[in-house]
Amino acid sequence: MTDLYLDDLAPGQEYALGSRSLDQDAIVAFAAEYDPQPFHVDTTAAAQSIYGGLIASGWQTCAIYMRLVYEGFLYRVHGMGSPGVDELRWLAPVRPGDTLTGMLRIESVRPSQSKPDRGIIMTTGELRNQHGEPVLTLKAPLLVHRR
Amino acid sequence: MTDLYLDDLAPGQEYALGSRSLDQDAIVAFAAEYDPQPFHVDTTAAAQSIYGGLIASGWQTCAIYMRLVYEGFLYRVHGMGSPGVDELRWLAPVRPGDTLTGMLRIESVRPSQSKPDRGIIMTTGELRNQHGEPVLTLKAPLLVHRR
Repeated sequence: MTDLYLDDLAPGQEYALGSRSLDQDAIVAFAAEYDPQPFHVDTTAAAQSIYGGLIASGWQTCAIYMRLVYEGFLYRVHGMGSPGVDELRWLAPVRPGDTLTGMLRIESVRPSQSKPDRGIIMTTGELRNQHGEPVLTLKAPLLVHRR
Repeated sequence: MTDLYLDDLAPGQEYALGSRSLDQDAIVAFAAEYDPQPFHVDTTAAAQSIYGGLIASGWQTCAIYMRLVYEGFLYRVHGMGSPGVDELRWLAPVRPGDTLTGMLRIESVRPSQSKPDRGIIMTTGELRNQHGEPVLTLKAPLLVHRR
């Protein structure tokens, strides 16, 4: 149910976003379409790379984060999209069999000066793997309708 | 053929990355898996949104940029991945039938102080639509092997 407007959001609110696992087939399928660098699609080449084995495209990690953001937060929000992302960091490789767990925090909430029907929230987000290591962090503004 | 090392790259070099079109089916398929906000997956809801119609997930736009970077530049480079992205901006909606054309520019080239086998290049990139409007810009460092 979409029930949250800008007016319902406040700095410091945190959302546990749930988890998603990915296997080798999913890693190779995504990379073959969007990011066919050898260490994303070729197990032999990946073993000889600095990563020592196949790793997921960082863009797939972002896509998984987005899915978890939707499932754990955005499905409830009267959202209007985003103008971009800052300080996106791929902090550790994501490998076949990893389970990624997400967290989102609202850092600020600001009504628009010029458009009374909306405002912008600044969020920070992260994904951690099953060892508790952060694999992705980012900062993203989101446009949200006002009540 | 993978023939370019850090030693071959220099600030100011620009690479035309080619083009990719995407249709409504591709937009909905990606969004259904990774970013099911209504204006990415539901034509009726999208028509009533601030976008006035279906638009692509920004993460799909990024994935298409990555594919064009690979096809137009990275397939030639002894690359080692990337630690992240800064100042990612979705500047205009990407709509069904749009054709996106990419450009990448090398802004700086810096050998690692601590690891003599590698260095880092800073790149800026963009995608423009068929009207010449920028739809995506970003800054991304890339790790590259030295000769």
